[in-house]
Amino acid sequence: MLYEINEKALKLESEGKKVIKLNIGDPDLETPPEIVEAAYDAMKRGKTKYSSAFGEKRLREKLASIHQVYADNVIMTPGSKFGIFSVMYLLLKDGGNVVIPTPYWTAYALTAKTLGAETRLVKTELDSNWQMDLETLESAIDKDTRMIILNNPNNPTSNVIDPKVLDGIVRIADDKGITILSDEVYADISFVKTKSILEYGGDHILVTGFSKTFTMTGWRLGYVIANTGLVEKLAKLNQITISNVPVFIQDAALTALELGNEIKEKIRQEYRERAKLASNVLSKSKLEFSEPSAPFYIFPRRRGLDSEKFALNLLDNGVAVAPGTAFGDYKEHFRISLTAPRDDLTTALNKICEAVE
Amino acid sequence: MLYEINEKALKLESEGKKVIKLNIGDPDLETPPEIVEAAYDAMKRGKTKYSSAFGEKRLREKLASIHQVYADNVIMTPGSKFGIFSVMYLLLKDGGNVVIPTPYWTAYALTAKTLGAETRLVKTELDSNWQMDLETLESAIDKDTRMIILNNPNNPTSNVIDPKVLDGIVRIADDKGITILSDEVYADISFVKTKSILEYGGDHILVTGFSKTFTMTGWRLGYVIANTGLVEKLAKLNQITISNVPVFIQDAALTALELGNEIKEKIRQEYRERAKLASNVLSKSKLEFSEPSAPFYIFPRRRGLDSEKFALNLLDNGVAVAPGTAFGDYKEHFRISLTAPRDDLTTALNKICEAVE
Repeated sequence: MLYEINEKALKLESEGKKVIKLNIGDPDLETPPEIVEAAYDAMKRGKTKYSSAFGEKRLREKLASIHQVYADNVIMTPGSKFGIFSVMYLLLKDGGNVVIPTPYWTAYALTAKTLGAETRLVKTELDSNWQMDLETLESAIDKDTRMIILNNPNNPTSNVIDPKVLDGIVRIADDKGITILSDEVYADISFVKTKSILEYGGDHILVTGFSKTFTMTGWRLGYVIANTGLVEKLAKLNQITISNVPVFIQDAALTALELGNEIKEKIRQEYRERAKLASNVLSKSKLEFSEPSAPFYIFPRRRGLDSEKFALNLLDNGVAVAPGTAFGDYKEHFRISLTAPRDDLTTALNKICEAVE
Repeated sequence: MLYEINEKALKLESEGKKVIKLNIGDPDLETPPEIVEAAYDAMKRGKTKYSSAFGEKRLREKLASIHQVYADNVIMTPGSKFGIFSVMYLLLKDGGNVVIPTPYWTAYALTAKTLGAETRLVKTELDSNWQMDLETLESAIDKDTRMIILNNPNNPTSNVIDPKVLDGIVRIADDKGITILSDEVYADISFVKTKSILEYGGDHILVTGFSKTFTMTGWRLGYVIANTGLVEKLAKLNQITISNVPVFIQDAALTALELGNEIKEKIRQEYRERAKLASNVLSKSKLEFSEPSAPFYIFPRRRGLDSEKFALNLLDNGVAVAPGTAFGDYKEHFRISLTAPRDDLTTALNKICEAVE
């Protein structure tokens, strides 16, 4: 339903209709011009050839130094999503199940489904501030469990996992010899400190990317940090799928990292303001929600809502949001992406408030 | 072995050694500057966002008009290789076997292997000018055969399938209800007319890309033309893997198509000259080979050769070629990519001639 809403929104736009698109995590902000210039410069220097399936050496080294790992632990992928697909493909294609807390990002479950892997959901609730119950997690795991996927901060709740809860999750995974895939794509611009999976030992896997941190969604650049054995396997998969990420895109990313904090701080600040704005507007309605600890989302609940009907009706009214059903068993929720300029955002939030009366 | 040679060649280069890389199909020619400018222009216009998993409408429409199909039959992928992986994934992930003529492009067999699909090889030989024997093809097919992969023109032989033989292959496939995936990535700059799979009816699939025709290898842009049902499934796979190909890359490709014939003719002419040059030099050695009908390769044979040892030794001597074993049961063959400037090419060809004495 998530992707259907998006294709429908794009279609309405191509027909000339105004749609405020709060349905996907694609910022309205532009990619910083320095990054565009770096890509152009690289193209002109002939960085338009095949290259290593692992990614460019300098970029991997820079990322390794940031994450305090070795360059051999880093592999570039066309978006963090491709990193997630690839890791899931390698760990699940021969069977087994995957444990995913909900609400989850839609792609995890769709990927498990296409791979024929059983998905075991661990539900978290607004009423307990989205914290995972460790006993429930433990009982979801069995001998066929191959991995646990964490999304920290979480899409769609923008909630950060409490460090003590995370300690508990890792302990359970380590006890049972299960790999954690931690998708931390929002961590770098989170409003609060987010504990990374890399702070624990073991063979757990980090996946993240440049899309959110540097407003580079459409560039498709992410990376995986894992043990060298898995990185080798991921490179072999790159070799038979995407070959390599365009080198001029990787060069642009290196510039993004060099500019680093300045860009990030600006982006984080903007989303913090929008989160405040949205919380203020929505708190006057009948919606219940937790305040975001990270970009880009709010995941409100309205008792009795049929979120799919709601999203389709709202789209006809010029606002695209994602129905809660796209994230698991959350029919009464919907997800708002705070990815529009503040005036559009205000217009859309007011329309949402009216629609839930 | 193909990819290992490539990573080793890149490593030698990064250590400052001169390597004439005739091991992969990556032209030395630059991407035409108009294409680079179009990408830059698109980036500056903010074409750096998520977009449709199918690809950009205008580009799909343009490709549809070129191939005389509907835009709904066209889907963009990050390289033709990703199109091949995706089609194979969808058709083979639930079992069955795939028939592949040899010599084949390495990625077909590696992809079948990772998917757990049985590969049934139909060998063709230099001595019969690489033409497929239809009875051998027919006997390779059984009730579990899900697809036949053709590569026309072929990598590594640069041979074009005789139209009458192709008619026969399609007739067999149609009789048995088997889908043909036809990889025609070299067809647009072939030295002779190449009959496309699209000239036949049925649900056969074309995959091709911009890499070879427009010297855009490192940009990673290809497309699949198929029935709308399969295109929908491919879009769903894009949604959970790569999201979409960067829009600025698709905009650059549209410019490439608009410039079209002028660029193509220049590229074709250059490779025709190189093919002549290579044929002249190699014909003075003990190598046997068929003259290329298309870019970029020659696939010579030397009786008694151990091509893997040969390729590794030659790499130490500053020339990278691909061993024949990477393309099937062709231990006495090796593949030369004519993807270096003529002076480097001449140097490398002479070293090759010396090495086979």
